[in-house]
Amino acid sequence: MHFKTELQQRTNEVQAIVEAYLPKETGHQKTIFESMNYSVMVGGKRLRPLLMQETYRLFGGKGREVEPFMAAMEMMHSASLVHDDLPAMDNDEYRRGKHTTWVEYGEDMAILAGDALMVYCFETALKAGAMTEHTDRVLRAASILAEKSGIYGMIGGQTVDVELTNKPIPREKLDFIYRLKTGALLEGSMLIGAVLAGASKAEEEKVLSIAQDVGLAFQIQDDILDVIGDQGVIGKPVHSDEKNNKTTYVTLEGLEQAKKEVGVLSERAIETLNSLPYENGFLTELIRMLVNREK
Amino acid sequence: MHFKTELQQRTNEVQAIVEAYLPKETGHQKTIFESMNYSVMVGGKRLRPLLMQETYRLFGGKGREVEPFMAAMEMMHSASLVHDDLPAMDNDEYRRGKHTTWVEYGEDMAILAGDALMVYCFETALKAGAMTEHTDRVLRAASILAEKSGIYGMIGGQTVDVELTNKPIPREKLDFIYRLKTGALLEGSMLIGAVLAGASKAEEEKVLSIAQDVGLAFQIQDDILDVIGDQGVIGKPVHSDEKNNKTTYVTLEGLEQAKKEVGVLSERAIETLNSLPYENGFLTELIRMLVNREK
Repeated sequence: MHFKTELQQRTNEVQAIVEAYLPKETGHQKTIFESMNYSVMVGGKRLRPLLMQETYRLFGGKGREVEPFMAAMEMMHSASLVHDDLPAMDNDEYRRGKHTTWVEYGEDMAILAGDALMVYCFETALKAGAMTEHTDRVLRAASILAEKSGIYGMIGGQTVDVELTNKPIPREKLDFIYRLKTGALLEGSMLIGAVLAGASKAEEEKVLSIAQDVGLAFQIQDDILDVIGDQGVIGKPVHSDEKNNKTTYVTLEGLEQAKKEVGVLSERAIETLNSLPYENGFLTELIRMLVNREK
Repeated sequence: MHFKTELQQRTNEVQAIVEAYLPKETGHQKTIFESMNYSVMVGGKRLRPLLMQETYRLFGGKGREVEPFMAAMEMMHSASLVHDDLPAMDNDEYRRGKHTTWVEYGEDMAILAGDALMVYCFETALKAGAMTEHTDRVLRAASILAEKSGIYGMIGGQTVDVELTNKPIPREKLDFIYRLKTGALLEGSMLIGAVLAGASKAEEEKVLSIAQDVGLAFQIQDDILDVIGDQGVIGKPVHSDEKNNKTTYVTLEGLEQAKKEVGVLSERAIETLNSLPYENGFLTELIRMLVNREK
């Protein structure tokens, strides 16, 4: 099957799983269900749950206990976007051409919707406990979810990003922000897939190394696209980093070095992937696509 | 030992446990650690972890795996207060005589601090997995924590409360708000204590019934104190419900009926507690104190 067709099929499958775990919109607290579902359904590439599922399959995972974790990861990602968009944060009114949650439901309900998604993320993930005999793996996977989302992961990165808004960012702090704000959930996604499938410690290490390389390459490619991308293709304004005086990998190291770095990181990730004795065709192509994408 | 002395000792013990699980204030993301710790250390009666520990002990719990859950519950409670105080929510500048988190750290950091506490709550609770051989109990306790905090618990109640701000509230919805917004975390606290100690299903049912009665009596007593309390003793303005045209149990049913209800609920809770074959002296006195308090 052609990769793009396969990717579309897999993404649809992931989308169905994410949807299946969203709450039913009924009861006194209906508005919170609606605002949560609106926030998740606004879309996206569903990259994190896709990477989780592919890593789970890579290590021979055949159960369904990965599914609540896939939905949970997408809820956490969506929650962070809902709060990022708030007036007191980035003050964004549109995301993917649709109103952000606070514009659609009000600031108070958007604060609660983000909170609700963060907590329901764990409520959902822990349902996996009833879907496998390996409850120890479920416990570890839930811990990884919390750790990679929290103050030593995504939220830690957001903190430094918020504090350095409109300020020059030294390379060391930029690396920290990239690794935590964007990287941590990607790492968490792949690591959870590996843990649930019963990968060994040595295999987990390799997965983490792959995820770190892919996460960083993905973020640098974002910076590159802001400079050389086509607004019509990307679907959001280009040159926004320059306009906002934002420090990025490109502003610090230059465009050529950035492109080179994406190449080095992605090749290293694929090399590590190939050192594992498993069939990885789809995952390899997925990684290549992610770091070579034009949007 | 006199009850008040014992309560003070136990509260100090609980306080030390909560503190021990707070993050160290070091690293690039230092501000988030500081704002989290500020939010938790602003104080309170530490009622939820205290009830959790006492219920754990009631059923013969002797381990330490209850401790991360005690700290986690207090983090979740604090997180909800941090977000409740935000300008887009209740817009409160003071809590217990100190600046609220958004006044002290800014709105953006307060949003992140609440998020951070909600996620770190699970990161902390799941540490219990390494402290007992009963990982199945830890998984169930973590699920209860999520459920009672989330859209079918506290956040569900907050949603309805926010939607009905400045509107008359029918009795049915007031019951829903009380049961979820205030009640759910109290229920969760006692239930987690019971589950971690290995209580039977029948015992869990009784604990839930006790917690529901105590939670409702506690909330109605709050309404009563707003009418008859002494500002100097309570430490916050009285008659605020009347001034804000707020629907409470007292405005709907009258002061005498409210007092009667508190008596009925607390006696029923103690009766249920006494139907369990365990030494419950401290817990009984704690319940009596909670519903007869003057602040």
